[in-house]
Amino acid sequence: MDKRLLIPLKGFRDFLPDQLAIRNRVKATLTEVFTSFGFQPLETPDLEYQQVLLGKYGPDADKLVYTFNDKGGRPVGMRYDLTVPTARVAAAYSHLLPTPFKRYQIQRVWRADKPQLGRYREFEQCDIDILNSTSPLADAEIIAIIHASLLALKFPQFTIRLNSRSILLSLIEAASIDKSQALSVISSIDKLDKKSKDEVCLELSEKGITTEQTEKLFTYLSSAKPDVYLQQVIDYAQKLGVSSDYYQFDPSLARGLDYYTGPIFETVVTSPKIGSVTGGGRYDQLISSLGGPDWPAVGTTIGLDRLCDVITAHNLMSDAFRPSTVALITVFSADLLDASLRLTHELRTHHLPVEIFLGTQPLQKQLKFADKKRIPYALIVGPDEVKSNQITVKNLTDGTQQTLSLDAVVSLLKS
Amino acid sequence: MDKRLLIPLKGFRDFLPDQLAIRNRVKATLTEVFTSFGFQPLETPDLEYQQVLLGKYGPDADKLVYTFNDKGGRPVGMRYDLTVPTARVAAAYSHLLPTPFKRYQIQRVWRADKPQLGRYREFEQCDIDILNSTSPLADAEIIAIIHASLLALKFPQFTIRLNSRSILLSLIEAASIDKSQALSVISSIDKLDKKSKDEVCLELSEKGITTEQTEKLFTYLSSAKPDVYLQQVIDYAQKLGVSSDYYQFDPSLARGLDYYTGPIFETVVTSPKIGSVTGGGRYDQLISSLGGPDWPAVGTTIGLDRLCDVITAHNLMSDAFRPSTVALITVFSADLLDASLRLTHELRTHHLPVEIFLGTQPLQKQLKFADKKRIPYALIVGPDEVKSNQITVKNLTDGTQQTLSLDAVVSLLKS
Repeated sequence: MDKRLLIPLKGFRDFLPDQLAIRNRVKATLTEVFTSFGFQPLETPDLEYQQVLLGKYGPDADKLVYTFNDKGGRPVGMRYDLTVPTARVAAAYSHLLPTPFKRYQIQRVWRADKPQLGRYREFEQCDIDILNSTSPLADAEIIAIIHASLLALKFPQFTIRLNSRSILLSLIEAASIDKSQALSVISSIDKLDKKSKDEVCLELSEKGITTEQTEKLFTYLSSAKPDVYLQQVIDYAQKLGVSSDYYQFDPSLARGLDYYTGPIFETVVTSPKIGSVTGGGRYDQLISSLGGPDWPAVGTTIGLDRLCDVITAHNLMSDAFRPSTVALITVFSADLLDASLRLTHELRTHHLPVEIFLGTQPLQKQLKFADKKRIPYALIVGPDEVKSNQITVKNLTDGTQQTLSLDAVVSLLKS
Repeated sequence: MDKRLLIPLKGFRDFLPDQLAIRNRVKATLTEVFTSFGFQPLETPDLEYQQVLLGKYGPDADKLVYTFNDKGGRPVGMRYDLTVPTARVAAAYSHLLPTPFKRYQIQRVWRADKPQLGRYREFEQCDIDILNSTSPLADAEIIAIIHASLLALKFPQFTIRLNSRSILLSLIEAASIDKSQALSVISSIDKLDKKSKDEVCLELSEKGITTEQTEKLFTYLSSAKPDVYLQQVIDYAQKLGVSSDYYQFDPSLARGLDYYTGPIFETVVTSPKIGSVTGGGRYDQLISSLGGPDWPAVGTTIGLDRLCDVITAHNLMSDAFRPSTVALITVFSADLLDASLRLTHELRTHHLPVEIFLGTQPLQKQLKFADKKRIPYALIVGPDEVKSNQITVKNLTDGTQQTLSLDAVVSLLKS
């Protein structure tokens, strides 16, 4: 077969064991934080009807949805995010769910975007959302969970940027910009963290916004204050333990998606230089727009890839690479295999995670295998050991070795 | 939106929290067993080039692969199983992997099959495979892991049926059936657990097998014995602790897929009446057929859905439905919210998983919410409690309540 077909499609990735060591630990940590706040798991299909997916994210995003007709001719698409499928679930099963419904969802999404550094066509999102609550306390809980999650992951620094769509809309109105252009203006403001102010002004003027309107808008932006709702969110988050070192009101924060209606928030780190590691906000109309109940909602996405980038850059999880077994039981020779099998079974009945070498290659090869997997001990049962009913234990970290009884080996490996 | 679009596509499923309670526990248990045997995680993309997927499973299976052209016109398909993508990974990264490479992979697969009871178009497989080992010990380890996994899940009964493709092929040859018909004959024999012997005989005669050949074949099948390799597999598995209560040589076991070359095995349970809960075998040519290294391999799939069916039928995991939080902190009234916030923060700093009610609905509604989520305690901070600096604790299991100091509440919830 063509060798080029052996590597994944552009923007898709294989994850080998070492790459999953950190990812799986991050997911486990997030899951632990989410559940400790009372969030419950949800999973949805990877394929949805196109009608469910399209028309929710804005026209540019719609083009990025992987769509096709299935074998029954149904127009289907691959999940673009976790929010829309969750909104569908809420619409379908509202009577079954305790509300406010707090769910977490960790699943893959697909976007036929141009791949670039840190942007993939297939990636995993970790979402938490609270459905059917208008309370600013719900928004505050989301912020408290972001805070708790990043502290649990030992992030040395992060800032949760806070703003509100209603603040942005009132500033746009105050700058005498027509309501019909609000979403388009917001999408330009959203680029302020990637583009210069001049470039954003140019973009606005191309959209027909006058210089006077733009100047007014920027003046208002520089002096804006949280509105009553957002101020309450901030107060509650503080009382839930989020210190002011970790958040910041930022009126230029816009967030790209169309469906936000109230507070919006994202988390940025200063190092490494990557975009936001979380992004979310309040979306009070989305669920009812899907034909579901009138459930106001708030939530956030946590970007697994970017979390892993920060953890790798700062070496925050060096113990993630510990092997899952404590010892490799080597096979001295084919005729001594039985002794190694017996030892393996014995240690496993002591609940010790051990592996036996699956072959009869030379001992040096077996030790190299243990080394490559970072297994701390190799156990050798050769003719002398069988005669004396003992086991030679080789410490692969410092190279020392000793010959011990089974009981002593069990104690050593348990410690 | 059309209400019919709110439920998943036929053969696809939403998983609500209660449905995930058992699933997630099963996955965690399997992961623990797999890693304790030294297996490492692997994940592959959900989309692959069609050339990678097609022509590996046989013509009937090929028709079930979800295929389409992506936005760049590339012919792609959704993963049909986990074995072929793993073989591709082995071919692509053989130099990076310690071998024998023992990997586990828990991911979804898709098959455009006719949905029926227990058969879905989207389902999750749990696979373990050992790559680059010809040792019967590798086959035995796979059997030992199936055994350890089902015991860890507290299965009351199961039988691992064992056979070998080489045994089947030699019986077919001994029955004077042409080699070119062997795979087709095997696929008929494979139906013996679903169809009657007469039906299978009819199918064989339709395939051009004479009555004499069929009779011979069935005579040989009834008296077949394990060959040398399979006997070694069985001996090693026994020495690794798999008792003969849990396995059985069964010469009529055929397994459907084309790529098996040696031992084959599947696990069946007597109750409930479902098909096999695991299925696997040795496939020594698949990886090299993909243009990869000459890595003989052996492995098994464990069917997550069927495991969950058995667990549900026998109520083997009743504690899976325990809530993740120990208490709901209620909100007595809007002006007393601060006291509830303070209590929430206080309990969380004591590492207690607690949730606060996200709204100011009447207390009865809040208690009903806690009940629906099976949270054991509700904490109430009303005007009296604020005055006396105490907390009322309502036990939602027995309905009793007591008023306690913060320290006493912490002790109670920790116990």
